[in-house]
Amino acid sequence: MSGQRVCVSDYEEEARRVLPKAVYDYYRSGADDQNTLADNVAAFNRWYLVPRVLRDVSVVDMSISVLGHKLSMPLCVGSTAMQRMAHPAGETATARACKAVGTGMMLSSWATSSIEEVMSAMTSSPGSGGVLWMQLYIYKDRELTLSLVRRAEKAGYKAVFVTVDTPYLGKRLDDVRNRFKIPPHLRMSNFSSASLSFSEDDYGNDSGLAVYVANAIEPALSWDDITWLKKHTRLPVIVKGVLNGQDAVQAVNYGVSGILVSNHGARQLDGVPATLDVLEEVVKAVQGRCEVFMDGGVRRGTDVLKALALGAKAVFIGRPVLWGLACQGEEGVTELLELLKEELRLALALSGCRSISEVSRSLVRRADFTSRM
Amino acid sequence: MSGQRVCVSDYEEEARRVLPKAVYDYYRSGADDQNTLADNVAAFNRWYLVPRVLRDVSVVDMSISVLGHKLSMPLCVGSTAMQRMAHPAGETATARACKAVGTGMMLSSWATSSIEEVMSAMTSSPGSGGVLWMQLYIYKDRELTLSLVRRAEKAGYKAVFVTVDTPYLGKRLDDVRNRFKIPPHLRMSNFSSASLSFSEDDYGNDSGLAVYVANAIEPALSWDDITWLKKHTRLPVIVKGVLNGQDAVQAVNYGVSGILVSNHGARQLDGVPATLDVLEEVVKAVQGRCEVFMDGGVRRGTDVLKALALGAKAVFIGRPVLWGLACQGEEGVTELLELLKEELRLALALSGCRSISEVSRSLVRRADFTSRM
Amino acid sequence: MSGQRVCVSDYEEEARRVLPKAVYDYYRSGADDQNTLADNVAAFNRWYLVPRVLRDVSVVDMSISVLGHKLSMPLCVGSTAMQRMAHPAGETATARACKAVGTGMMLSSWATSSIEEVMSAMTSSPGSGGVLWMQLYIYKDRELTLSLVRRAEKAGYKAVFVTVDTPYLGKRLDDVRNRFKIPPHLRMSNFSSASLSFSEDDYGNDSGLAVYVANAIEPALSWDDITWLKKHTRLPVIVKGVLNGQDAVQAVNYGVSGILVSNHGARQLDGVPATLDVLEEVVKAVQGRCEVFMDGGVRRGTDVLKALALGAKAVFIGRPVLWGLACQGEEGVTELLELLKEELRLALALSGCRSISEVSRSLVRRADFTSRM
Amino acid sequence: MSGQRVCVSDYEEEARRVLPKAVYDYYRSGADDQNTLADNVAAFNRWYLVPRVLRDVSVVDMSISVLGHKLSMPLCVGSTAMQRMAHPAGETATARACKAVGTGMMLSSWATSSIEEVMSAMTSSPGSGGVLWMQLYIYKDRELTLSLVRRAEKAGYKAVFVTVDTPYLGKRLDDVRNRFKIPPHLRMSNFSSASLSFSEDDYGNDSGLAVYVANAIEPALSWDDITWLKKHTRLPVIVKGVLNGQDAVQAVNYGVSGILVSNHGARQLDGVPATLDVLEEVVKAVQGRCEVFMDGGVRRGTDVLKALALGAKAVFIGRPVLWGLACQGEEGVTELLELLKEELRLALALSGCRSISEVSRSLVRRADFTSRM
Ligand SMILES: Cc1cc2nc3c(=O)[nH]c(=O)nc-3n(C[C@H](O)[C@H](O)[C@H](O)COP(=O)(O)O)c2cc1C
Ligand SMILES: Cc1cc2nc3c(=O)[nH]c(=O)nc-3n(C[C@H](O)[C@H](O)[C@H](O)COP(=O)(O)O)c2cc1C
Ligand SMILES: Cc1cc2nc3c(=O)[nH]c(=O)nc-3n(C[C@H](O)[C@H](O)[C@H](O)COP(=O)(O)O)c2cc1C
Ligand SMILES: Cc1cc2nc3c(=O)[nH]c(=O)nc-3n(C[C@H](O)[C@H](O)[C@H](O)COP(=O)(O)O)c2cc1C
Repeated sequence: MSGQRVCVSDYEEEARRVLPKAVYDYYRSGADDQNTLADNVAAFNRWYLVPRVLRDVSVVDMSISVLGHKLSMPLCVGSTAMQRMAHPAGETATARACKAVGTGMMLSSWATSSIEEVMSAMTSSPGSGGVLWMQLYIYKDRELTLSLVRRAEKAGYKAVFVTVDTPYLGKRLDDVRNRFKIPPHLRMSNFSSASLSFSEDDYGNDSGLAVYVANAIEPALSWDDITWLKKHTRLPVIVKGVLNGQDAVQAVNYGVSGILVSNHGARQLDGVPATLDVLEEVVKAVQGRCEVFMDGGVRRGTDVLKALALGAKAVFIGRPVLWGLACQGEEGVTELLELLKEELRLALALSGCRSISEVSRSLVRRADFTSRM
Repeated sequence: MSGQRVCVSDYEEEARRVLPKAVYDYYRSGADDQNTLADNVAAFNRWYLVPRVLRDVSVVDMSISVLGHKLSMPLCVGSTAMQRMAHPAGETATARACKAVGTGMMLSSWATSSIEEVMSAMTSSPGSGGVLWMQLYIYKDRELTLSLVRRAEKAGYKAVFVTVDTPYLGKRLDDVRNRFKIPPHLRMSNFSSASLSFSEDDYGNDSGLAVYVANAIEPALSWDDITWLKKHTRLPVIVKGVLNGQDAVQAVNYGVSGILVSNHGARQLDGVPATLDVLEEVVKAVQGRCEVFMDGGVRRGTDVLKALALGAKAVFIGRPVLWGLACQGEEGVTELLELLKEELRLALALSGCRSISEVSRSLVRRADFTSRM
Repeated sequence: MSGQRVCVSDYEEEARRVLPKAVYDYYRSGADDQNTLADNVAAFNRWYLVPRVLRDVSVVDMSISVLGHKLSMPLCVGSTAMQRMAHPAGETATARACKAVGTGMMLSSWATSSIEEVMSAMTSSPGSGGVLWMQLYIYKDRELTLSLVRRAEKAGYKAVFVTVDTPYLGKRLDDVRNRFKIPPHLRMSNFSSASLSFSEDDYGNDSGLAVYVANAIEPALSWDDITWLKKHTRLPVIVKGVLNGQDAVQAVNYGVSGILVSNHGARQLDGVPATLDVLEEVVKAVQGRCEVFMDGGVRRGTDVLKALALGAKAVFIGRPVLWGLACQGEEGVTELLELLKEELRLALALSGCRSISEVSRSLVRRADFTSRM
Repeated sequence: MSGQRVCVSDYEEEARRVLPKAVYDYYRSGADDQNTLADNVAAFNRWYLVPRVLRDVSVVDMSISVLGHKLSMPLCVGSTAMQRMAHPAGETATARACKAVGTGMMLSSWATSSIEEVMSAMTSSPGSGGVLWMQLYIYKDRELTLSLVRRAEKAGYKAVFVTVDTPYLGKRLDDVRNRFKIPPHLRMSNFSSASLSFSEDDYGNDSGLAVYVANAIEPALSWDDITWLKKHTRLPVIVKGVLNGQDAVQAVNYGVSGILVSNHGARQLDGVPATLDVLEEVVKAVQGRCEVFMDGGVRRGTDVLKALALGAKAVFIGRPVLWGLACQGEEGVTELLELLKEELRLALALSGCRSISEVSRSLVRRADFTSRM
């Protein structure tokens, strides 16, 4: 079986073999008992696809527009921290892969490549597509926070995704057991001090990252900070980490341009719903007043299709990109994105959809029993 | 346990042992994660049989009429491609077995025996029953397509089942890993060129059959093609691959003689409902305006009974026949069909039904909990 | 763990070790895929007990009256064939155990002890309780059938339970594979000819018992036979094998004295509901016009309690008694019955019930989710 | 992995290794098939947490008031018998740990430390919090019973929790198989005679504790005994072991100060509902007329949060404290309580709650499917 990778789990399997244990553990883990981690994936099997037949599907157009920018497909790369632990080229490789495939990438505040480096990697790479967005953690140090935003603006990033689900870091048992730290040759590249770039010598008995967050990240984050942020940037602001209709309405009222339904890849609070299961509630609450995205557990073309049918404008993937990087750097990510793109194309065609606009709510039905799928 | 085969899974077990891996894989596989593959079978356990007692069941009449032809039982053989990979006599053995048992057989467009060969095998074989129907893939080359229909008409086939769920081939991971091709001594017998008979040398890194379909089969298939086909044949036209009431109504409006509720044995789009779970919706939508059949996951006499209770006129089996062929050719298929026939007879009797017409909706109830059955 | 037997499954475990495989298989098996076999047991876990507290339960009275006869508890021994395969004393041992414990026993038509032998074993045994009922298979030979009834009447049996779910024998795969026959030193003791006493030499490739039934038992059994039977006996007639409200109403209309909700220990038609799941439907349909009993999957004192709460007058156990016999003959059965009696007493007390009449519908609730219990 | 204990199950794992088998079995077991035992834990996964975001959670106040006494958190230590089997310091270690952490402890009637000893351990220990409550079994000997209450009053205990679910001891199979007795160097310290202190030589083939209960504990316990008890003490009386709304209303009518929703850690009647599943029914029935608590299966900070959202004033833990004791005595319990406290703090923060009063019913939703979580 080694050799050809024919589905996302082949990438994970290979990545598990090549990565150092503590890195793999950090990438893979969810919070506490990891119930939501499993549930994010399982949720897709609680929804059936009900295909229509005999519609001419000789041509399938997968392009969409996200926040005003055209992408080749409704599948984008989500922000995952410290990608150089997976491959020396890290985030720059991912950016080049996104350019090649024509999709968007959200860069983590905690990247091991700088904001400017990643943009220049994308710009200098062949291909005509590709968009970059900035994922923002709001630091206790607000000036520092704004400097990240300004650098992203200046470099040509097209939006800011503020992560709102991390006033403290979720408890990931493996990271505690491993006393997870960044490998010594790496650092969070957007910061200069050892304490901000996560390169101190000792973080005690705990997950180093949890200690880092407790020290640096703003736990008092509130809706007013959205107002504050919008005042300081001309970029569209999207909130990342909403899980219910009430917060979604609040977000719209605070003037966000988009909502990313996310539970942070099940890494923050265990026991929260799978994102797919709350997506429709958010979509209905928002009533079209901003764009709605989702991430969490997307591993198949059919997963993307189900999320679209439930109202997502586009979906993001986190871990699969890390597996792609670990397997084969830029090429690995490009391959992986192409694989998912082909899976989505086939899923659309076999469902009778010729374009994303033909994907409608009636394409999915909730299983009314527990499927063992 | 080797020796006597007392249920369908005994046949599969033995077939798995005697068949080359790539052939067994091709026969067994479903698309992608194979969730629907498992679900097709599991669905039968979501429906209970509620038997009535104390009805004289000393005689049980299982005969029915399908599209105007009398069969000895409501269980027919569905179209599965390339049966000579299972046994040298392939489709001709199957046809003879159907004759012996008095039931119908649907011949695949992709048979490794020609349309004429199979008819002559059936005709020349002892027994009084037996009907042949033609399964039709619509090729990009429409003239070629019509030539298949005309040959079937001429040979005495009684209906055309147009497969409508395959504008592209579903992704079956094992076939991709195995780079599945037909063994060199075989070919699709209804075609003359190497490219149409699936006998090219190289199909690259992919499933050869997926490449074949992408090259040859019409992805633009639409409802108008049903009209076109009906214009060119006097045979009844049945659509194979409908999974919801809306498409069923459409089919009736386009004048089909029957609808086969099928997800192609879970080989096309993973995540679609189990066929048994949508059968009743189709039956209700059709309101008796054409005959409704189903296939997918039928492995037991009680499965047949449940499908009949939910409104199917008859059911088809795919894989079990391949296991019968692999075990023992014509004799294996005959035995397998007799086994299922006896299971159905016993199920009818123990349910209190003396004939197929006594099977009614009240015989089945949906389990209102997740059974671990 | 060998040594003390503290719950019914300890008895089964030990029985499995001491019995010849073909005997154990025959006793244990259900029909076909054995889904209903597992479901009969699992159904008890779909119902919760909701106990009441602070009721004086210092004394718990478990006595009840079944068909006019007082028993020490609402748990009786059901009819299981050929008990001498489990222990040399067979049905006579069981009868003595029932006497000791003060409960009733239903003797199978297919007993390896005669009707008279079993009654005399019970009568001659110490203890003050004990009732015998006759289970009746209706044979094609009606005179023979009536002779069984007359012998039972004469010997002092108190009722006739007519089995109505066996016009043909269900297909039990292990018995087919084992070509199950009665061991040569045994026979069905109520019959004289080799063919009727199940002692022919050869039953072919099939389960010998299935062949026996096909030859001897009446497949044309119908409601009129209930009328016929009632005309020929003064004993109360109970139908054994009803699974729905409609048949229950019919039975009442035909004048039965009781209905035994049973699926024959899941040995006849696989896929029928668990008996506990249809018990309430039958109880409601009957509206108190006759007594309602149930059997199938009872393995715990709490199981008995749940069945009572759902309306059963008493329950029967089949297999557990065979395990008791296999472990230790009469003593094993007595022990097993005492064990269940104590479990029931504790369950009643911990539920706040001082007598059977205090067991009410509100004691149980259906789980509204799939429990993994 | 040995070394750091990062979640409650790490403590259990280590305890299992260090404890004598019969002691571990006694601590761990549930009644009969232990279905409710598993269900108590599983129930927490049937409820989702739906967090709110962007609320300033820089400060989280977990303090609450239980029966008029302020505690540092809504998690208390429940009564578990014979803690010196886990660690030489037993209940006195637990009391000191509770003082350190600032929470309450319920002392079992069956403690291996006396009422006075435990109070003095708590009083003499550093820390400012800590409350003691007395768990009361009502003995057949009522004078003896009142003497326990008077001693508790005198020593400064703040309430009496009367256990109402144990007129007889539930059947725990391991204890029967192990013929469980207290180790010879220990005794129930609140009693002087061998028979009352559970130190007789021989309890026969059964669980020694079951025999003890049958001999000594009042099986005729009834609502009038609540009246009787209230007449004899000025302490608030709480009933421990209610599982439905009707009994809860009754309790309120009898003037209790609180209700502890409990199934005795699934040790009494198997098949009763998980406590979390009936908590809301009790809360609704009580309509605020007394305080409602729950115990059973709490193993995580998120579990506490779910119980609070469903209306519990505070929750109790049983087994986890025994694991803490077994691992490391007082320090083990302190660590374990701190661990759960930190888990709860994080759960509150990540749910958007700044204090216990902000935890509302809308924080939890029942999963409408079977989660495999
Ligand atoms: C290893 C890893 C690191 C992550 N780092 C960040 C991050 O720095 N910022 C952020 O907002 N989300 C981060 N996330 C969450 C992802 O953006 C995304 O929500 C999640 O991975 C989606 O779920 P999936 O991994 O199942 O596709 C991270 C997730 C993973 C797995
Ligand atoms: C190996 C195999 C080959 C098949 N070939 C064809 C085919 O050529 N044309 C077609 O319409 N359906 C084809 N099918 C689908 C079957 O006609 C049928 O829908 C399916 O096998 C029924 O499910 P079952 O295998 O669970 O009984 C094939 C199925 C299998 C398993
Ligand atoms: C080995 C065996 C033999 C049986 N023989 C008979 C029989 O002769 N007549 C009959 O009416 N039922 C027979 N039954 C069915 C039982 O009367 C009863 O319905 C069933 O065993 C109850 O289920 P349980 O075994 O789960 O308790 C038999 C069941 C078993 C397991
Ligand atoms: C080993 C053990 C001993 C117990 N002893 C008592 C007791 O003496 N009195 C009592 O009221 N409850 C007793 N309980 C029940 C507990 O008070 C509590 O209801 C239960 O342990 C809570 O469930 P948990 O163990 O899942 O947290 C005991 C429970 C255990 C596990």
